[in-house]
Amino acid sequence: MYTLYYSPGTASLLIHLALLEIGAAHTLELVDFDADAQRAPEYLRLNPNGLVPTLIINGIAISESAAILMSLSDRHPQAALAPPIGTTERDAWYHWIVYLSNNLQATFRFWFYAGDLGRSEHAAVTHEALRLRIEKIWTTINAHLERHGPYLLGEKFSAPDLQLTMLMRWSRNMPHPATEWPALKRLADHVCARASWQRMREIERLDDWQ
Amino acid sequence: MYTLYYSPGTASLLIHLALLEIGAAHTLELVDFDADAQRAPEYLRLNPNGLVPTLIINGIAISESAAILMSLSDRHPQAALAPPIGTTERDAWYHWIVYLSNNLQATFRFWFYAGDLGRSEHAAVTHEALRLRIEKIWTTINAHLERHGPYLLGEKFSAPDLQLTMLMRWSRNMPHPATEWPALKRLADHVCARASWQRMREIERLDDWQ
Ligand SMILES: N[C@@H](CCC(=O)N[C@@H](CS)C(=O)NCC(=O)O)C(=O)O
Ligand SMILES: N[C@@H](CCC(=O)N[C@@H](CS)C(=O)NCC(=O)O)C(=O)O
Repeated sequence: MYTLYYSPGTASLLIHLALLEIGAAHTLELVDFDADAQRAPEYLRLNPNGLVPTLIINGIAISESAAILMSLSDRHPQAALAPPIGTTERDAWYHWIVYLSNNLQATFRFWFYAGDLGRSEHAAVTHEALRLRIEKIWTTINAHLERHGPYLLGEKFSAPDLQLTMLMRWSRNMPHPATEWPALKRLADHVCARASWQRMREIERLDDWQ
Repeated sequence: MYTLYYSPGTASLLIHLALLEIGAAHTLELVDFDADAQRAPEYLRLNPNGLVPTLIINGIAISESAAILMSLSDRHPQAALAPPIGTTERDAWYHWIVYLSNNLQATFRFWFYAGDLGRSEHAAVTHEALRLRIEKIWTTINAHLERHGPYLLGEKFSAPDLQLTMLMRWSRNMPHPATEWPALKRLADHVCARASWQRMREIERLDDWQ
């Protein structure tokens, strides 16, 4: 039994999806951003950085969405979210999870939180640079998928496809949403057709994308 | 047999250390940043992002330092760089690797590459915000190590300790280098005393830290 601390549509969406893919029993605890609940003392005891997601696994609080994704994939091999350890496919799996986290998600963080760069709003030049950085990543992944898709690991769906689709959704109000890149759009269509995505959308009440 | 594409002191240092810890046979290929060799067409074929490290594993090029670290740890269990799959220790291992990659390393990238934010030099307010963000991370990790150290996973040294020590070294010319935080300093002293670190320093000719 897991407990997921979440806020709709944010990085916790990835862990919500993973739990639904796995079919693991779980409780959802809303962290109300409107009330700044992510910075309440009791939440900071679970997650000292004041961020979602936090997942409670056997009474222990774990944070960092990409890390939790890997832990859950390992703990539930029957869900086939990860290739076996020590294989070429597993190397690619780690590559994509880290690439999406270190490059794309980290850049989105600055895109959405100008405060992290010291301003209430980005200077125009910064805004433009972050946008181009994100678009360059779409182009890189799209090129990979054109040759080796439809999923990040090829024929087989796996955990980083969930991560990529969540991050694509984050671009929906940008000048060039990720769905403008055809191979990305194709991957998202596959992922959004899954029962896990449909169920997550209902529960998190997200009706603004795909 | 591995081939590591590296540049001294950069993110490739982590993979160099991991190979030395493991005792795996490997060839080093210098990517000469002074000659912009990371953007040469033949290198871009191995690493489309034009970054180091790239590691060739059985003829296949893998990038992203944190990903390669996990692959190597799995492929060489006798080096004991990773706890067993499906354990609480493994959850913490993923947590720290992702935390360091997604938060600390990604912020360092912007710190060192103002161009990624569209300028030749950071605006003062951005510079200050990035510095504070990095220092806040040192404070968070230091607090963890004070209670649960000396290593990130407690009594046992593991892969993310290498990652943390590399990232600490990157702060050596900052107003407050990471070694000002006592529990961080203690961890780095342990890691820098290892044969792998000593050997890496000789080979990469780094004599400016610890
Ligand atoms: N590296 C973290 C980042 C999590 C993160 O930035 N979460 C955002 C929502 S997407 C958050 O909690 N924001 C609230 C805040 O910054 O106050 C992860 O991947 O879990
Ligand atoms: N996410 C990548 C980042 C690698 C990276 O930024 N490497 C830097 C050196 S620390 C680089 O290759 N810089 C050359 C350039 O940007 O032209 C990783 O962890 O491997």
